[in-house]
Amino acid sequence: MSTDMHEHIVKSYDDEQKRLLDETLRMGEMAASQLEAALDVVERRDDKAAERIIANDEAIDALEQEVSHDVMKLALRGPMARDLREILAAIRIASDIERIGDYAANVAKRSTALNLMPALPHVTGLHAIGTLAVKQVRDVLVAYRDNDVEAAKNIRVRDAEIDIAYTGLFRELLTYMMEDPRSITACTHLLFMAKNIERIGDHATNIAENVWFLVKGEDELPPREKRDESSTTTGP
Amino acid sequence: MSTDMHEHIVKSYDDEQKRLLDETLRMGEMAASQLEAALDVVERRDDKAAERIIANDEAIDALEQEVSHDVMKLALRGPMARDLREILAAIRIASDIERIGDYAANVAKRSTALNLMPALPHVTGLHAIGTLAVKQVRDVLVAYRDNDVEAAKNIRVRDAEIDIAYTGLFRELLTYMMEDPRSITACTHLLFMAKNIERIGDHATNIAENVWFLVKGEDELPPREKRDESSTTTGP
Repeated sequence: MSTDMHEHIVKSYDDEQKRLLDETLRMGEMAASQLEAALDVVERRDDKAAERIIANDEAIDALEQEVSHDVMKLALRGPMARDLREILAAIRIASDIERIGDYAANVAKRSTALNLMPALPHVTGLHAIGTLAVKQVRDVLVAYRDNDVEAAKNIRVRDAEIDIAYTGLFRELLTYMMEDPRSITACTHLLFMAKNIERIGDHATNIAENVWFLVKGEDELPPREKRDESSTTTGP
Repeated sequence: MSTDMHEHIVKSYDDEQKRLLDETLRMGEMAASQLEAALDVVERRDDKAAERIIANDEAIDALEQEVSHDVMKLALRGPMARDLREILAAIRIASDIERIGDYAANVAKRSTALNLMPALPHVTGLHAIGTLAVKQVRDVLVAYRDNDVEAAKNIRVRDAEIDIAYTGLFRELLTYMMEDPRSITACTHLLFMAKNIERIGDHATNIAENVWFLVKGEDELPPREKRDESSTTTGP
């Protein structure tokens, strides 16, 4: 093969890899914006905006299809080492982002049920945890773009903050339900919305772990602390 | 390359691909057994057995690492078309199985909290949905092993049964909490356990969709009905 032709092929592989990264980052930014918008409609009790968020989730799913398609195309060229990790990381990260989008849409969907019931003070607590999660998602996308292993490690550590805030809100909601059984349906939606956000934090952590894998290969990451204690709580 | 050597390489690729499939199926059977055991300990209120299930989850996580490792090894050989789909499907299916294992372990974990509170009649309903989910997981593993697209399509359709049963149990639990606020903490655990099982059903459906992708390539699947209405419920 001539050097020219070789360069041409290498350049086009790099272009496609860049396209894959851009697509995945765009997908991530869409999911972060969806979550931000969902938190906003919960506070504003805006059904119309909630419907739009639910509808927008399809665009994220469509982007995941594109990512899969581009991964298939790149895989056919027999990438090695770092290039191979690049496409494996992209497919996993896209799958985490798709789930983040689903959870954000479910927050919006549950808000429409909440809007039929009296407003609860706990939406403020939900908003606070949600804001932490939006930040985690945006930060991990930057770490992914910049191959920043240190940032990825910090994001993974910071997930404990979301877990602690979630456990606190979980207990508050249980107390409130006991004090006012008429709020049970609404509080249950809030419990699941809070759980969705806690799970979004876990997916941001998964993405951080994939950034590590991408840069460091199969080197082991230091163990991670989980601070969500709501699964074993025996009362508020 | 001599024909002999070519055959040798092809045979060893096939062997490794078979190993990958076997590993993934073994991982799937472990997750199905974990869920079955978790349902059992909920009924028997057996803390010791619950602890074992929680500890066993690590073995599933370790198998996912092995699957990832084997996928990397196979990917380095530059597989094409069907072989490429085989490894992409394996990596996604292993990730779904890993989640199924996590949900099963979480059911066991929550059962230890339930055991500190009075027994509730709803564990029967939970067991019923759980049994549907175990069957879905086992059936989809058989469909995967046999490349059975028709079976995969049926599994996807049958997920609606789990969604309907879940929505019913969800409403029952809300009613019960309103009637007896002292049961709120226990019922909340049951709500999350039921949700875990509903999610396991979704992961079985994801696996079914990967069986379709594996056999049919990027041909589109017919659209799917979702029957979980609990996200928009405004009361029991």
